[in-house]
Amino acid sequence: MMGARRKAAIIGGGVIGGGWAARFLLSGWDVALFDPDPEAARKIDEVLGNARRSLPALSEYQLPREGRLILCDTIEAAVSDADWIQESVPERLDLKHSVFARIEAHAPETALIGSSTSGFPPSALQQRAKRPASIFVAHPFNPVYLLPLVELVGASGTTGRASAILTEIGMKPLVVRREIEAHIADRLLEAVWREALWLIRDDIATTEEIDDAIRFGFGLRWAQMGLFETYRIAGGEAGMAHFIEQFGPCLQWPWTKLMDVPELTDELVLKIANQSDQQSGAYSIRELERIRDDNLVAMMRALKGRGWGAGALLQERDARLKPYNDQDFSKPIISVARKIPIDWTDYNGHMNESRYGQVWSDAADAVMTMIGADADYIKGGRSYFTVDTHTRFANECHAGSAIEVTTHILEGAGKKLRLFHEMRDGAGGLVASCNQLLIHVSLKTRHSCQPAAEISQKLAAIVQQQAVLPKPEKL
Amino acid sequence: MMGARRKAAIIGGGVIGGGWAARFLLSGWDVALFDPDPEAARKIDEVLGNARRSLPALSEYQLPREGRLILCDTIEAAVSDADWIQESVPERLDLKHSVFARIEAHAPETALIGSSTSGFPPSALQQRAKRPASIFVAHPFNPVYLLPLVELVGASGTTGRASAILTEIGMKPLVVRREIEAHIADRLLEAVWREALWLIRDDIATTEEIDDAIRFGFGLRWAQMGLFETYRIAGGEAGMAHFIEQFGPCLQWPWTKLMDVPELTDELVLKIANQSDQQSGAYSIRELERIRDDNLVAMMRALKGRGWGAGALLQERDARLKPYNDQDFSKPIISVARKIPIDWTDYNGHMNESRYGQVWSDAADAVMTMIGADADYIKGGRSYFTVDTHTRFANECHAGSAIEVTTHILEGAGKKLRLFHEMRDGAGGLVASCNQLLIHVSLKTRHSCQPAAEISQKLAAIVQQQAVLPKPEKL
Repeated sequence: MMGARRKAAIIGGGVIGGGWAARFLLSGWDVALFDPDPEAARKIDEVLGNARRSLPALSEYQLPREGRLILCDTIEAAVSDADWIQESVPERLDLKHSVFARIEAHAPETALIGSSTSGFPPSALQQRAKRPASIFVAHPFNPVYLLPLVELVGASGTTGRASAILTEIGMKPLVVRREIEAHIADRLLEAVWREALWLIRDDIATTEEIDDAIRFGFGLRWAQMGLFETYRIAGGEAGMAHFIEQFGPCLQWPWTKLMDVPELTDELVLKIANQSDQQSGAYSIRELERIRDDNLVAMMRALKGRGWGAGALLQERDARLKPYNDQDFSKPIISVARKIPIDWTDYNGHMNESRYGQVWSDAADAVMTMIGADADYIKGGRSYFTVDTHTRFANECHAGSAIEVTTHILEGAGKKLRLFHEMRDGAGGLVASCNQLLIHVSLKTRHSCQPAAEISQKLAAIVQQQAVLPKPEKL
Repeated sequence: MMGARRKAAIIGGGVIGGGWAARFLLSGWDVALFDPDPEAARKIDEVLGNARRSLPALSEYQLPREGRLILCDTIEAAVSDADWIQESVPERLDLKHSVFARIEAHAPETALIGSSTSGFPPSALQQRAKRPASIFVAHPFNPVYLLPLVELVGASGTTGRASAILTEIGMKPLVVRREIEAHIADRLLEAVWREALWLIRDDIATTEEIDDAIRFGFGLRWAQMGLFETYRIAGGEAGMAHFIEQFGPCLQWPWTKLMDVPELTDELVLKIANQSDQQSGAYSIRELERIRDDNLVAMMRALKGRGWGAGALLQERDARLKPYNDQDFSKPIISVARKIPIDWTDYNGHMNESRYGQVWSDAADAVMTMIGADADYIKGGRSYFTVDTHTRFANECHAGSAIEVTTHILEGAGKKLRLFHEMRDGAGGLVASCNQLLIHVSLKTRHSCQPAAEISQKLAAIVQQQAVLPKPEKL
């Protein structure tokens, strides 16, 4: 599906550039990175380590094979042959202009040249460019390897091409139709940031109290619906216009100090830094990053279960990844190949026993798809329900570990579907096995019934092909 | 644990008042509601319906038995004998003053009198009060039955008593130390709301684009960490002060229009309402409420798995609810009693087969706690691991359904622990059974070993008591 291996050039390998590199690499792109910092190799390794332990867990399938990371000594070496070039250098316009000049001198004419700038509009970035239309804003959000949003601002042909690529690597391109400084999201962030600085300066609240006011309240709403859809609900049956009438007048009240900009005195900076130490100092930055990433993965997977927002995006990506087609049925079927996500582990530090059941359930789904009992068939009112499972647990496995399940279809006549699954770890060691009996049912009556003829035929053919396989020992 | 049944009086039964009523009722309080709206009974029923299908799913245990809802014709009738009185009438100070006067005339002197006001500080609310110290701000967030945050502003003795009660009913009291208009969270919301209105007025973005900019990006960060902890990480190893130095200067740039207040012309109101219809009009308000609640439950449960933020709060509440102690072991043990949460269901619309495994795992945990192999024992380096399960699925069950598991300990000698579980629905019908073999292990060697002597003794005694039970048929 991915076609020939493509190449991204990442100019600037800090938190943002490193995040871009990780996102491209784990989506199967080769990445050429240029960063003059002597610590660049260590830093990119750290970001990549974080990304490898979290990003693959967002999918129920194996991602494409990781691309190759090439550290380059010059911009020239990095950008030659690149399909996408991403600039993430410090926010100084003169620096960005000189970087773009060097990129344009050596990059393919068709290359997309994105800038991670939070503030500059594309017209400012393009000022001295030879091919201004190829330079655009592609503003991502930290951690870039997990958060889907990218604000795109630039010529419409360019942002269209960029959107297609970003969608492919699992991101959510948001084309900003009119350029303004700080695009959209950072305008909102900036507003909150100012107000929060006032609250701290005036001793109304500490950094921790402000964070709690967000994460125990509206932060949870915003993670899934944002501002307007949330308020639409608050307006109730009377609707959005009614809500605005109710809440609108407050805009004129002296509720914020936003007419003023707080002065960032040394004293205020120190106050914030001290409060932040008290709030979060028990964790190192590395620990906080991992806590954040695990939280994000777990929450995004929760939304995936609901098919909503960032979770709907994950479902769409998985639909493109589905990898179990066109197998040779004279061998055991590969029915699951994936990494174990953090939300599958328990207090013993390993995959909870119930998630072995999840794996069997997913393996049965893959087999059902192969025999034609797929999503459309289920929509039509029939499915298979599991009635009996016997699981033997042979070994533990942990978050981030790769597992593969092979399935032998033992029986497929009439309403019965009997599967024997074996789960193996990355080294090929047996983790568990399961003997699973499913019965074909009508979703209307909720009782057993015969499958469609084409399912029975397909199943019979596979069972015959699999008859050459040795009977599983463990039965 | 809850002591005698307590009573909350809810004055004003709109979205917020109704949410308070639902939160108290589902925490086992009796609730007396006063609202002059002839539609009040229907409205409260709707909120309560939403709450019943979502709030219990946040816990792994049964909540206290739901309290009694009494609709009252007068404030007097509602507040007599009330322990907590919550005012949620429209935001007009004169109206609130007259409501407080009637409350004070009839409420017990010791009653706590909270106001849901988003804007007024307590000194304004207390202006004509007889017992001003008992009146305080308790500002919750919609949906009140799910979101934990309550901002408390008032006399410290009062907010202290209020905090204890709110914590008990699963909320997160945030005591605001200095009164200001709009407290803390609404200051931040107000800032974003203004900025968002400008973006729409100036045709930079639509309501949907703004919501996407939030929920695919920083909204996910804020739901779990808030603003400052997120930025602390962004600052990286150089720390918070460094981050402020980097980001601080932007405050002086013309990134926001916040110096100005947008005029809410009819045209702007209509524009927002139309954009909102286009974005969300495919769903009714009722549907949106349920989507929101399911998303919130799934995300909060995801955070519960991580023990973080709103999820840590859920864990703490569960720790207080743990209900399976002091059982008569000559009967089958009640090892699970709960409602099925939304994140346990699959595309077939019923509890996924893997979650039957989750229930057996939880039932085994309850048994382990009873025999002394509890969290402390596990911390000490020993535990039981499941090595074999045989599950028979007898029936389906769905999100929101109550289930109960009874467990018969069949074998408990040496390293072995063999359990037979039966899961029943609310009507007592068999849903599934499981024969589960666990082996006692050392968490250091990850190999089997003998349990501590006191565990073996306790187990032997229970097995002997349970010997009077009939052998399970299904074995």
